[in-house]
Amino acid sequence: MPLGEKYAGDKSKSRYCGVETDFDDDIPNLLSFNLHGGFDFLLATLMDPDYRPSLLDDDKRRSRALPFAGSDLVMSPSQWSSHVVGKISAWIDLDSEDETIREDSEIALKQEIAWASHLSLQACLLPTPKGTSCANYARCLNQILQNLGNMQLWLRIPLDKSEDDEEEASPNHLHEGQTDSWELWNSFRLLCEHHNQLSVSLDILSSLPSPSSVARWFGEPVRAAIIKTNSFLTNARGYPCLSKRHQRLTTAFFNHSIQIVISGQPVHNVPSPSGLTSENQVEGGWRHPLRPYLDYLAHLYKTMDPLPEQERFELGYRDYLQSPLQPLMDNLEAQTYEIFEKDTVKYSQYQRAVAKALVDMVPDENAFSVTTVLMVVGAGRGPLVRASLQAAEETDRKLKIYAVEKNPNAVVTLHSLVKLEGWEEIVTIVSSDMRNWEAPEKADILVSELLGSFGDNELSPECLDGALRFLKEDGISIPSSLDIYHTKFLFVVDFAGFAGYFDATLYKDVHLGIEPSTATPNMFSWFPIFFPLRTPICIQPGTPLEVHFWRCCGSTKVWYEWCVTSPAASPVHNTNGRSYWVGL
Amino acid sequence: MPLGEKYAGDKSKSRYCGVETDFDDDIPNLLSFNLHGGFDFLLATLMDPDYRPSLLDDDKRRSRALPFAGSDLVMSPSQWSSHVVGKISAWIDLDSEDETIREDSEIALKQEIAWASHLSLQACLLPTPKGTSCANYARCLNQILQNLGNMQLWLRIPLDKSEDDEEEASPNHLHEGQTDSWELWNSFRLLCEHHNQLSVSLDILSSLPSPSSVARWFGEPVRAAIIKTNSFLTNARGYPCLSKRHQRLTTAFFNHSIQIVISGQPVHNVPSPSGLTSENQVEGGWRHPLRPYLDYLAHLYKTMDPLPEQERFELGYRDYLQSPLQPLMDNLEAQTYEIFEKDTVKYSQYQRAVAKALVDMVPDENAFSVTTVLMVVGAGRGPLVRASLQAAEETDRKLKIYAVEKNPNAVVTLHSLVKLEGWEEIVTIVSSDMRNWEAPEKADILVSELLGSFGDNELSPECLDGALRFLKEDGISIPSSLDIYHTKFLFVVDFAGFAGYFDATLYKDVHLGIEPSTATPNMFSWFPIFFPLRTPICIQPGTPLEVHFWRCCGSTKVWYEWCVTSPAASPVHNTNGRSYWVGL
Repeated sequence: MPLGEKYAGDKSKSRYCGVETDFDDDIPNLLSFNLHGGFDFLLATLMDPDYRPSLLDDDKRRSRALPFAGSDLVMSPSQWSSHVVGKISAWIDLDSEDETIREDSEIALKQEIAWASHLSLQACLLPTPKGTSCANYARCLNQILQNLGNMQLWLRIPLDKSEDDEEEASPNHLHEGQTDSWELWNSFRLLCEHHNQLSVSLDILSSLPSPSSVARWFGEPVRAAIIKTNSFLTNARGYPCLSKRHQRLTTAFFNHSIQIVISGQPVHNVPSPSGLTSENQVEGGWRHPLRPYLDYLAHLYKTMDPLPEQERFELGYRDYLQSPLQPLMDNLEAQTYEIFEKDTVKYSQYQRAVAKALVDMVPDENAFSVTTVLMVVGAGRGPLVRASLQAAEETDRKLKIYAVEKNPNAVVTLHSLVKLEGWEEIVTIVSSDMRNWEAPEKADILVSELLGSFGDNELSPECLDGALRFLKEDGISIPSSLDIYHTKFLFVVDFAGFAGYFDATLYKDVHLGIEPSTATPNMFSWFPIFFPLRTPICIQPGTPLEVHFWRCCGSTKVWYEWCVTSPAASPVHNTNGRSYWVGL
Repeated sequence: MPLGEKYAGDKSKSRYCGVETDFDDDIPNLLSFNLHGGFDFLLATLMDPDYRPSLLDDDKRRSRALPFAGSDLVMSPSQWSSHVVGKISAWIDLDSEDETIREDSEIALKQEIAWASHLSLQACLLPTPKGTSCANYARCLNQILQNLGNMQLWLRIPLDKSEDDEEEASPNHLHEGQTDSWELWNSFRLLCEHHNQLSVSLDILSSLPSPSSVARWFGEPVRAAIIKTNSFLTNARGYPCLSKRHQRLTTAFFNHSIQIVISGQPVHNVPSPSGLTSENQVEGGWRHPLRPYLDYLAHLYKTMDPLPEQERFELGYRDYLQSPLQPLMDNLEAQTYEIFEKDTVKYSQYQRAVAKALVDMVPDENAFSVTTVLMVVGAGRGPLVRASLQAAEETDRKLKIYAVEKNPNAVVTLHSLVKLEGWEEIVTIVSSDMRNWEAPEKADILVSELLGSFGDNELSPECLDGALRFLKEDGISIPSSLDIYHTKFLFVVDFAGFAGYFDATLYKDVHLGIEPSTATPNMFSWFPIFFPLRTPICIQPGTPLEVHFWRCCGSTKVWYEWCVTSPAASPVHNTNGRSYWVGL
């Protein structure tokens, strides 16, 4: 039973709450008990915790089945895969000094994961590395990851208080015993070479590390947060509740699609069911012993601030790399125009810019006598034509518009738009590439929207160089200028790439941009561009980072190359546009 | 005219000496002058040094050829490629603050390298990066390297005195202005991702950096050393000579196949040719102005200590990775046996070990009555059979030998050897895999030579586990034990892998091994095993390096995995034997 619905059609994974259970060889009963009690899935031990491969002699090995919690047939495949996350035996310690434990651990780990794969479980929870060294554990897991199918492996890591979690920590503190559990995770994941099926499950304890230490987990692939019952406080009515910091953290988990799991024995003396409202009861008055904790989480979920519309729109694109458009080489699809045209904020900014330009260019006394020539280069299906005409109407200026568009499919739509709106006298449609068109007259105003996330990655310069030929010397280009940014970095991070943004001055004080500090609100046409680094680099606080970017041009394509030169040199990336280029 | 011959058939590249020349558009004459003067090749400027792309207007660009030193037809293709290393214009500065210089530099660099490729030159010399930043230079060169054909690019780097070239230098000194020219090279090569066509040419100046700073260049791909005439001292007779340190360095260059180039004007007042011995004269008494410098280098070359036989044998295998043998999965070829059997030192060590074992096992008084059963497992073409029989003869003991060999081709040779030597009464040949053979009796002594470079990488444990079945409980196994090593590292290095060695105790004090400090001399059957790291790691002096190795066994193969865990974690290498495994 999901925790709630943040908005109509909420599909967030974090609506589903799990419960950690002990080993039980009647797993169908265990599942039904907990589903009945309101939980959505189990974190269930798969193997009898007393099992040790070395305790079995050869005969037993041959004649006996492994002591798993029930055969695959005790539940349907969809029950196994929808409601069970497999918990790998906690005694497993691959870096033990005892050779027998190491060997038993490797055998058991492989057997349990093979069993979980056989059951098509979506994920397994791996025990926390026992010591500071985890090399053999990582080596073994790395072998397993190479042939794993689709299952995720969640490495269980405590969200631990780091002892020297201070800004002024010495640059070498990381090697002195790894007090921060993030370091343990980082070593583990480096050893497994950032394998995308290896992720994290965090144990939430009663005390939390500093906010900056917590914050960096949100850059990691955290799939679940296991909250211990003894991390809950007690409210005035005797019910469990979380501290303000725990509440904020839990809300952040919800917003990042991280699933919550409740773990441990009930430790709160909640008033008996008879005193509860009907909402908290189930038939017969029976209540799951951990229900008060679940109810509290459901309460938190339901009372979160609703997501702004823009964030909801963007939810599906989060942590997802999209290929930039190739508007020159390819013709855009109707669907793409559809999405662009929905971005009303963008066009109202263009309308404001054109209006200001018209007023500056044509004094009020000439408003009826002068006709301004405006060219929309890259008119698409007409949104900038419409915005320009609205600006003319708003300012009572007269316009003559050339709508230049190279995509013949969009030109079809442009023609019907012009007919439908009765713009035939004002708008001339030119079906041509702006780089080749010979304009019959020069323009007073040139309007274009060829802006990539990085301002020029969709080839604005190449196109506009061609188009600027037909702008009058005292004409106005909208946009008039362009700035591009890179982000800054403050923490010790394993740093894996750069985000690129633009900010364009359309005209005078009318801006359009996605640089976070000055971003035009509620605009969704652009996401930041991402310049990855093949190998993440570790940057200590205060160490300057020196980065180079090049925009390279060939006769048929344009591409970026980039590199880091300090603290240490990286290879030059995307040489000759090897991995990505934009066609001319 | 080569500098000399260190031994009969000397084919070292460093026999050939070059000379750096100024731009001359009569390059055939320039070449003939210098060949005539005793040099073997030119370091010749390819392009008129006054050329700047930006100085040409469009018309000139179209109508005029580029001002190269002569067309390709002025010399034969083999003259160009055997005797000319192209020198790229020294004015080129891709990281200049002046945009015109940057643009001219990129155009000229590409034109000159394209021209050198057209001429099929073996190498081009690239100008030294001008400032501390070389990112744009590296970016441009990296693009060129992607499509270069076979030509090498030698980046010219001064062998510079580093200002804080002290052991106690702070770990961060490298980022404070790169005082050591090695750092410049290192950044450059990292930016170009260790491209194997990018190498180094060192400028040798009159003062040399510290020995440790010089030493690390011998880990780099140095192809040429350019010695300035003003780095030479003057001897008592007025002739040029080098300081002791320069002499040692030059000898080291010779030994590492690094070619010497003489550069600069003659700065020594050498007595006139009439005073010379005939050896130094050419017809007509004419002498190349730089001839005294060349003669001195020839003198150094000829008076070097001759290479020991073993080093000469190994010369062809230097810096060359060989695949380890797969003696179990594959049958070795006759040629391989041939090479093994030449390693007389190895077999005399085995003979010593068998002799000691026989004496220990059979007291003198029983020498004639007791016959010792000895099995050679992996007998090949018989060298260990021969060594064992020689040990028996030497100690007057009686032997019965089983020679077990799985390769039917080697068994053919074994049979004819036994017949030829008349060993039929003593030696029983068993054509079988030792892992499957059922021996008719147990052995007193078991002899094997299945040793890889790393002791067990050619599967000694797997084979011997099988063979030890037929050794008597109080029998002797030769070798009796095995140790493996890894090297240690002392310097700040870009560290790219590990060398592995073994040392085996054949019997009591008889050893066989390749660990450098205890290596058996003059043995050439084994080279160290190399465990590479995909990405080199930089280790500061005093930083501990933590490394893990695993020998992993599957049902059909054996392989190693390895990783670094400190100072930072690397990925686990060779997961599941992905890159290399040994078949069972």
